[in-house]
Amino acid sequence: MKFEVTILGSSSATPVFNRNPSAQLLNCNEKFYLIDCGEGTQQQLTKYNLKAARIDYIFISHLHGDHYFGLIGLLSSLHLNGRIKPMQIFGPKPLLEILEIQFKYSDTTLRYPLEFFPIEADESRLIFENSDLMVKTIILNHRIPTTGFIFQQKQRQRKLIKGKTDDIPMAYYTALKKGVDVELPDGEVLKSEDYTTPADLPRCYAYCSDTMFDERYFETIKNCNTLYHEATFMHELLDRANETHHTTALQAGQIAKINGVEKLLIGHFSSRYKTLQMLLEETQSVFEYTELAVEGRTFQL
Amino acid sequence: MKFEVTILGSSSATPVFNRNPSAQLLNCNEKFYLIDCGEGTQQQLTKYNLKAARIDYIFISHLHGDHYFGLIGLLSSLHLNGRIKPMQIFGPKPLLEILEIQFKYSDTTLRYPLEFFPIEADESRLIFENSDLMVKTIILNHRIPTTGFIFQQKQRQRKLIKGKTDDIPMAYYTALKKGVDVELPDGEVLKSEDYTTPADLPRCYAYCSDTMFDERYFETIKNCNTLYHEATFMHELLDRANETHHTTALQAGQIAKINGVEKLLIGHFSSRYKTLQMLLEETQSVFEYTELAVEGRTFQL
Repeated sequence: MKFEVTILGSSSATPVFNRNPSAQLLNCNEKFYLIDCGEGTQQQLTKYNLKAARIDYIFISHLHGDHYFGLIGLLSSLHLNGRIKPMQIFGPKPLLEILEIQFKYSDTTLRYPLEFFPIEADESRLIFENSDLMVKTIILNHRIPTTGFIFQQKQRQRKLIKGKTDDIPMAYYTALKKGVDVELPDGEVLKSEDYTTPADLPRCYAYCSDTMFDERYFETIKNCNTLYHEATFMHELLDRANETHHTTALQAGQIAKINGVEKLLIGHFSSRYKTLQMLLEETQSVFEYTELAVEGRTFQL
Repeated sequence: MKFEVTILGSSSATPVFNRNPSAQLLNCNEKFYLIDCGEGTQQQLTKYNLKAARIDYIFISHLHGDHYFGLIGLLSSLHLNGRIKPMQIFGPKPLLEILEIQFKYSDTTLRYPLEFFPIEADESRLIFENSDLMVKTIILNHRIPTTGFIFQQKQRQRKLIKGKTDDIPMAYYTALKKGVDVELPDGEVLKSEDYTTPADLPRCYAYCSDTMFDERYFETIKNCNTLYHEATFMHELLDRANETHHTTALQAGQIAKINGVEKLLIGHFSSRYKTLQMLLEETQSVFEYTELAVEGRTFQL
C-alpha cells in the first residue's frame, strides 16, 4: 500500500529562494491528504504534476498565514474547476469563519460540500479514521493554538501467497487473509499461515509543524516511523527559537533520537538561510537519518 | 518621469500554464502602486526582482479571489520583514474585515500602519492624489461591485534647457519652470519660453479588470493613453462572456477603438486557452496597437 509524502513548501513565514510556505501532500493508498496549505500551494501542486482534484482531506495545523493562506485559493479553484465531491477540512475553529467571509463577499456558493471539523488544541485526540488510517492530533507548543498530526496506518490483512491459493475457492480468501483457518466440507483444514504471509506492519507519520521543544508532546510521537519536524533555526539562535516558539535543527535531531523514530524530515526553514546544508548537518550530528523536506521531494513512509 | 507598468499575473480565476492571477505593479516616478493582488503575487514580485517593500499603495478592484487572495500574504510578509512605513490600501469595504479577521486569529499586530480607504462602486470618483498623479475609479459591470482605476499623471513643469540657464541664479528656476517670466533687478526680463521647453504631456493609464462591455464606463476611460482591459474569452464565447460578465477579445478591441486610446493591453485570460496568440489576433483585427499583458512584461505608459 502506497504511503508517501511529497513536500510542497519548506519555508517559514515568508516565501524566499524558491522555497514556498508549508504544505505537504500525503498519499495513502491513492487517497490524498493535504497537510497545511501556505500561499501558492495550488501552484506548487501544478508544478509537481499533482492533481488538486484528488485531494479529499485537508489538515491545517494553525492559523499563522504561512500554513493556510493558500487554502481559500485552492478551494475556490476546485469550485471553479467543477468539483462536486465533498472536501473535508480539519483545522482551528476560526478557519471556517475566515473561509466563509471570503466566500460571502465574492458571492460564491461552493458547488461541492465543504465539511469542516474544528480541532481543539487542548489534548491529543483521534480526529479522523477510515479503512486505511487514523489521524490523531499532536498538541504542540507555539504562540497560538497549534496541533501537529499523526497519520497511523491501520493493521493490514495478511497477504495471499501467489500460486498457493489457485485451487482454493475465492470465498475462503477473506478468512485466510484475516488469519482465520478454514475447515472444508470434507473436514480438511486450510491453515491461514500456510497460504498467507504476515501483513506489512502498519506505519506511522508524525507531522510537527510549528513548535518549541516541549516534552509534553513526545508521548504522542514516540516510535513513529517517520517524523517531520520543523527546524526553523540553527542552534546558535536558540534564544530566538525560544522567543518565537520554534525549534532549532539540533533540537529536531534530539527530538527524533529521544522518541525512537526511524527517519526524520526537517523543514520550515527561516528566510535567513539561503542554503540548507548546514541545518541538515547540525541535525545529523545528533540524528543521522535526517533528510531535508524540500520542495518536490517525495519520501516513502 | 518614469511611468510604466509590469504585469505580475494574466490569468483569470485560477492559476494555469504558468499564468498567475491578476496583479500589476505601476511605477510612477519611482513610487510603486500595486493594482490587484492575486494569490502568489509576492512570489511573482520576487521572481521579477521587484521589491515588495517599495510598494506604498495598493488598489483592489473587487473581491473575487483571483484579484486579492495574495494580499494577506503580502501584507504579512512585509510585517515580518520589518516594514514600518504606512501602507495605503484602496478597495471594497469588506476587504478590511477580511484582512482583520486573519490578523486577529494569527495574533498579528502589524508593525506598520495600514491605512484603508473603502471604495464605493456607485459612481466614478477621485480616490487618491499626490504630486505625481490622481487616481479615479471606473465603474465596471461585473457580477459583484467592481471598479477599475485611472492613473492620471499631473501636469508637469516646463523643463530647463541645459546650457542656457548656467548664468541665471537658481532662485529663478522655479518661476521659469512654471512658465512665469522673471524681471531682474536691472529691469531685464527673462522669458520662460527662452529658457525652458514645454513639459511632457501628462499621461493616463486605465485599468479595467473584470467587466462586460458596457458603454456607461466609456466616458471615464475616453482618450486615455494606455488602456488595460480584460479579454477573458474569444468572441465565439460571447454568450459565456455575457453570462459571467466578462469581455471577449474582439470587444476589448472595440472598446479601445471607440474610446480613442493609443495602446491596448489585454489580459485576464481564461484557463481554457493554453496559448494566447489567437486572442491577440482577434483583438488586433479591430485595434492594431494591442499587446498581451503577460507575466514579466513591462510597458511604458
